[in-house]
Amino acid sequence: MSVWTDWFAERRAAREAAGLQRTLRPRAVDEDVIDLAGNDYLGLGGHPLARRAAADAALAWGPGAGASRLVTGTTTLHAELESELAEFTGHEAALVFSTGYQANLSAVGVLMDKHSLIVSDAHVHASLIDGARMCRAAIEVVGHNDLAAVRAALASAGGRRAIVLTESIFSVLGDAAPLPGLAAICAEHEALLLVDEAHGLGVAGEGGRGLVHAHGLARHPNVVMTATLSKSLGAMGGAVLGPAALIDHLVNRARPFIFDTGLAPAPTAGALSALRVLRAQPELPQRIHRRTKELAARLGAPTSAGAVLSVPMPSPQAAIAAQAAALAEGVRVGCFRPPSVPDKNSRLRITACAGIDERRWAHAVDVLTRVVYDHLRWS
Amino acid sequence: MSVWTDWFAERRAAREAAGLQRTLRPRAVDEDVIDLAGNDYLGLGGHPLARRAAADAALAWGPGAGASRLVTGTTTLHAELESELAEFTGHEAALVFSTGYQANLSAVGVLMDKHSLIVSDAHVHASLIDGARMCRAAIEVVGHNDLAAVRAALASAGGRRAIVLTESIFSVLGDAAPLPGLAAICAEHEALLLVDEAHGLGVAGEGGRGLVHAHGLARHPNVVMTATLSKSLGAMGGAVLGPAALIDHLVNRARPFIFDTGLAPAPTAGALSALRVLRAQPELPQRIHRRTKELAARLGAPTSAGAVLSVPMPSPQAAIAAQAAALAEGVRVGCFRPPSVPDKNSRLRITACAGIDERRWAHAVDVLTRVVYDHLRWS
Ligand SMILES: Cc1ncc(COP(=O)(O)O)c(C=O)c1O
Ligand SMILES: Cc1ncc(COP(=O)(O)O)c(C=O)c1O
Repeated sequence: MSVWTDWFAERRAAREAAGLQRTLRPRAVDEDVIDLAGNDYLGLGGHPLARRAAADAALAWGPGAGASRLVTGTTTLHAELESELAEFTGHEAALVFSTGYQANLSAVGVLMDKHSLIVSDAHVHASLIDGARMCRAAIEVVGHNDLAAVRAALASAGGRRAIVLTESIFSVLGDAAPLPGLAAICAEHEALLLVDEAHGLGVAGEGGRGLVHAHGLARHPNVVMTATLSKSLGAMGGAVLGPAALIDHLVNRARPFIFDTGLAPAPTAGALSALRVLRAQPELPQRIHRRTKELAARLGAPTSAGAVLSVPMPSPQAAIAAQAAALAEGVRVGCFRPPSVPDKNSRLRITACAGIDERRWAHAVDVLTRVVYDHLRWS
Repeated sequence: MSVWTDWFAERRAAREAAGLQRTLRPRAVDEDVIDLAGNDYLGLGGHPLARRAAADAALAWGPGAGASRLVTGTTTLHAELESELAEFTGHEAALVFSTGYQANLSAVGVLMDKHSLIVSDAHVHASLIDGARMCRAAIEVVGHNDLAAVRAALASAGGRRAIVLTESIFSVLGDAAPLPGLAAICAEHEALLLVDEAHGLGVAGEGGRGLVHAHGLARHPNVVMTATLSKSLGAMGGAVLGPAALIDHLVNRARPFIFDTGLAPAPTAGALSALRVLRAQPELPQRIHRRTKELAARLGAPTSAGAVLSVPMPSPQAAIAAQAAALAEGVRVGCFRPPSVPDKNSRLRITACAGIDERRWAHAVDVLTRVVYDHLRWS
């Protein structure tokens, strides 16, 4: 592999020189840390009912769906999850995918082709960007949450079919998109607004129904929604939600749906069980918001519309050192460094997880306050 | 959604006119059919050990991995599966993905960019094609299994980095690729050969180690392999296998790996358990080959290098009618129709599943023989 060996070695050396080389670190099942790094925002992945439902599904159906969804990979579990997700978020229909990543690839891919125009917020997720690239549409990236720029881009669409890509609550900064304004502009221009609710579902809006629902946009004729089952629902998978005609179109046209094995029964059942727990406890998401506010105040950091607090640090090195110091005291947080940040600023990424009990949460807040102030003085 | 409503309706009408409209049909857990439509080639998704392992993982870890692999989504289960897969197939290292689809997107995506050349067999899977489109490399599609065409395409690469895309055993026709010839041509031209073993792993080669292993190509400096955990391992997920430097490169660069939640614990544990069952019963894949031979002879159809028999039918209507007639007698088979076939010919797709007991298999063979001959006379 001489040429290739050299090429891999050069790339790695460049990453190491930039301090950006990463490696995988497996975690053990019995580790004793307070985990504020993951995306199980409501702690539903740890809920005994969700675990039991996932385990029962694995026993009854096996570890896999056995085939693609259009062959025999659709079980009654998938159908139940789809109808309950649609009902919960207020959409006419839903389609479940193996991953949120493939839901986004598919939604963009079946709506756009090389004659279309994609207007993308500068901060959207990699899966939406990859979907845009794959379908070969023209792509116009506009400033973050910049309504005027979206309007201008759509005005230049000519007769092309156009969509606007956004997240309801953005991954990295935790800020919300101006959804009503975006929907109105899309309606004016006969464009579709695709809202990725990965960080909104289970977190924002009444009972965790998301921001599309909160703004009364769930049946807006120009709005479609995508979501993941891997964050507040504590499982794995993704979904597209919208009119039944869109779902039918996806079933027939989306390559990452048609040519992919169905989502495994265990995460399907786990997500379904988590959704039911959430419906039975509509006050659960409130705890997230109390915690983000409390922690933001203690850290002097900007608060978040979602579950993730993004705490700016003076340098990548300071961020990593703070992360290590917190872990040494039993609190795990995440870390955003280039290239995973929209600007050049490294940050701690702290999930205000609702699933942690009050005593452990209070301890985590104390540890993080101390550690962050210690490292803010770094430069 | 006026403009869009019309657009969806037009597209659906066109599909209906062409007889290509498809809908999802959920299956129940207790249905009583002999399933020769799925991809659980060895029946390992039905193995009690695999089901138990998947259920135990869901109980111990929860329904999801909780975060992306680089954050906290790598469990000790993922690490074990990766090392056992690499060892089994003879590669230095392996990386597990949420789906085989994303493994292929990633492998192509991290090796190629807009300055590179992709030489693709005309019959490769949608996920490899999507990977090629996403990375914006030049794409040259060559005739199926045409070594001379591959050589000519690589000869025109100039100084560009180049890869050749193939499957070891092709999905639709069930034929094998000329791997030693392809590897030699790639070595001559300093190109990489990417072999998708989705239908080879667990099926072909000694004990099911795949065709890359069977041809002694597992550590060939110009060969990398991808695989799915969703077919003969009966679970869900995918893998890339090759030199450790490639795996390190993927961990750091593959967007469908970095920006995606890790594979859920249940399918991870299910695949690991299935792999261990296969290692303990290396004779298991033989049963597939006895069955494809037997069934091909009875149907007068071409046999298969893999587990799937592809039986040409006179028309899409005849294929659908034969499929329905078999199902009415309790035997489910698949059906290939355009656009899921490389040529225009519709086919029955019959899996010679090793997991079905002899009595039921014999019954299925009788039913299928009768049904296929009945419908061959159609035109
Ligand atoms: C905004 C957003 N969209 C989509 C995804 C992909 O979802 P999944 O991990 O379920 O593939 C993620 C994160 O993983 C995300 O943060
Ligand atoms: C050749 C081939 N590659 C890749 C895939 C994708 O694998 P997965 O279903 O695990 O996403 C499939 C089928 O699904 C396949 O047939």
